Amino acid sequence: MSDAMPLVTLTTDFGLRDPYVAEMKGVILSACPQVRLIDVTHEVAPGDVGEGSWALARVWERFPPETVHVAVVDPGVGSTRLPVAVRAAGRWFVGPDNGIVGAVLDRWPPATAVELEASRFLAEPPSDTFHGRDVFAPAAARLACGESADALGVTLEPGRLVRLQEEGPARTGDTIRGHIVHVDRFGNLVTDIPVDWLPDVPTATIAGRVLQDIGRSYTAVPAGGLLMTRGSGGTLEISARGTSAAAALGVGRGETVVVSPLD
Amino acid sequence: MSDAMPLVTLTTDFGLRDPYVAEMKGVILSACPQVRLIDVTHEVAPGDVGEGSWALARVWERFPPETVHVAVVDPGVGSTRLPVAVRAAGRWFVGPDNGIVGAVLDRWPPATAVELEASRFLAEPPSDTFHGRDVFAPAAARLACGESADALGVTLEPGRLVRLQEEGPARTGDTIRGHIVHVDRFGNLVTDIPVDWLPDVPTATIAGRVLQDIGRSYTAVPAGGLLMTRGSGGTLEISARGTSAAAALGVGRGETVVVSPLD
Amino acid sequence: MSDAMPLVTLTTDFGLRDPYVAEMKGVILSACPQVRLIDVTHEVAPGDVGEGSWALARVWERFPPETVHVAVVDPGVGSTRLPVAVRAAGRWFVGPDNGIVGAVLDRWPPATAVELEASRFLAEPPSDTFHGRDVFAPAAARLACGESADALGVTLEPGRLVRLQEEGPARTGDTIRGHIVHVDRFGNLVTDIPVDWLPDVPTATIAGRVLQDIGRSYTAVPAGGLLMTRGSGGTLEISARGTSAAAALGVGRGETVVVSPLD
Repeated sequence: MSDAMPLVTLTTDFGLRDPYVAEMKGVILSACPQVRLIDVTHEVAPGDVGEGSWALARVWERFPPETVHVAVVDPGVGSTRLPVAVRAAGRWFVGPDNGIVGAVLDRWPPATAVELEASRFLAEPPSDTFHGRDVFAPAAARLACGESADALGVTLEPGRLVRLQEEGPARTGDTIRGHIVHVDRFGNLVTDIPVDWLPDVPTATIAGRVLQDIGRSYTAVPAGGLLMTRGSGGTLEISARGTSAAAALGVGRGETVVVSPLD
Repeated sequence: MSDAMPLVTLTTDFGLRDPYVAEMKGVILSACPQVRLIDVTHEVAPGDVGEGSWALARVWERFPPETVHVAVVDPGVGSTRLPVAVRAAGRWFVGPDNGIVGAVLDRWPPATAVELEASRFLAEPPSDTFHGRDVFAPAAARLACGESADALGVTLEPGRLVRLQEEGPARTGDTIRGHIVHVDRFGNLVTDIPVDWLPDVPTATIAGRVLQDIGRSYTAVPAGGLLMTRGSGGTLEISARGTSAAAALGVGRGETVVVSPLD
Repeated sequence: MSDAMPLVTLTTDFGLRDPYVAEMKGVILSACPQVRLIDVTHEVAPGDVGEGSWALARVWERFPPETVHVAVVDPGVGSTRLPVAVRAAGRWFVGPDNGIVGAVLDRWPPATAVELEASRFLAEPPSDTFHGRDVFAPAAARLACGESADALGVTLEPGRLVRLQEEGPARTGDTIRGHIVHVDRFGNLVTDIPVDWLPDVPTATIAGRVLQDIGRSYTAVPAGGLLMTRGSGGTLEISARGTSAAAALGVGRGETVVVSPLD
């Protein structure tokens, strides 16, 4: 690594009330004092690997190359799931091999993957239930400080990494069928339908409602009005001006959205 | 800028669950790697420009000169509201021109203001709905790294900047009339009445209750008791020992408070 | 201090919505610009000194020596409780003398303690109700920047520091009696029973339920099943696979747990 101050980001379901994230940070700073730490989110729903994967997928490309991204949503901690470090797109991704980095790997085939062997870099065995602190944090710190991944474990065939099995968006003729993949703090409904799949004049059907407004600003509709937007993550979003589209439509993650050209 | 490690603070309504704040941080660190990032708050109520303005006004003077303060509560994103960078009191304030930096500008007349033109510093057009990431973050990073504001946009007459229209406190004879402007996590009621307006022995009336106790410590009253304090933000506060004054009085932001000297 | 970039951690009950934590950070960075700041938690229940103490006790040893740990859960702010800086285990602990660093001092007898005298390091008197910003933050910044504690106050006999009076775990013959000391985000029940007190084959009784499963992974039981684990903080924990043990058992902090060897 050429950076004087390497970056490590953290994506977990540990929450902000408990001291677990700070324990990870202390371990990282003890092993690699010059690291700068950035929180992606710690408010992933407990055990929700898909939500963690979605959050990581949104942000990692915004960070400089060589950033080490640690992602720990790990309901199988201590079981047979493997601890891994995966190199893709010039970054490191460190976490359990349960699909959490799947959305990254779908787009960027991994160059290298290593099954972490804690005994190679830890003086004591890890705890049973907190590999975020005892395996992933020290491994990430070592990678951030320039240690070779070969020193941390054994090579793993990248094709064997676990991928999330999620149904993606599909096109049949003029019709696109997708899903809500995230509801954000504002109640915006983020779909998995790429904006470049949208027809020039789209209409969206969701929960029995038909939407025809698409805007470059929420102010394109009156207060409370529903509209489509070309979302900042590159997929169609459905929003309500000044209020929650999720509440207005009574829908959440998983809901089907059908888009077709306006007749 | 003379600082080796410039500071950028962030004040938003993006929340801590979604990855939006981290996207902004990735953009800033990619453009100006030596920046240190400090969160002011991301839990401003969605779209509440007044609350964001209040939070920023409380903190900015605590940070060193040359700090760049980014404030994005931006319900009009993508509409005609201008993206601006304003220099006041030796700091930069970057965000939408919707009044969010109004409480700063009320006290410190701005020296310079620039309407940001994203095409000057971005390779691609910004998204429609996330100027925090696509306009304000890159502009702030450039200012933090010492780039001239002239390179980021066109000069704007500071007097044209949007100000929040909020009713301030008023004095009529011995009587002061103010309002609750914030309810904090403890249920403390923060008013807009400056402590140096208070008479030597004040009495406060709120929601039909008359308070005569004023303390240098919450322990000045019994458990659950209500009292006035000279608040740490320089205005009168109303608190309850060990519990929430907001709950005890059944009041919130906007409630009227009348102060007069004890007879 | 030899570190080029000293570390300061923050543990408070100030929450993340209000700007209070950011005010502390601004004060610290103004007094010691090279400090790196790490949040332990700001979501301690308002005024809950025991919860703050538990969080700090879990994390401080993970951070490098010379880290300055600031802990402010301070319901008696402005009253007769002393502001202190305590040196133990090669670290500084700064906060009110109300027991918040008690769990540290129980294990590591303090080497030095100083009663902070704000007049020695502040140009103006502190506010009545926010010593986190006005006393503890500037004192911590000065210690982090290498100033002598003698310059910040007067020596205090360490034996006079306030300790929390909490009932610890107890052994009677083969039987161990302890308590739930924390319920985490996942609903895990953290006890105060050291894992090295556990018999080879333990059984735990809590809320009328008898647990016999103890696992190295939550997957040791079926979905929803209760189990004991050797917790990552070094004490027995009671968990439910994929759900909240606290909800499943209807218990919270303070609940009694009795452990004995399986017959």
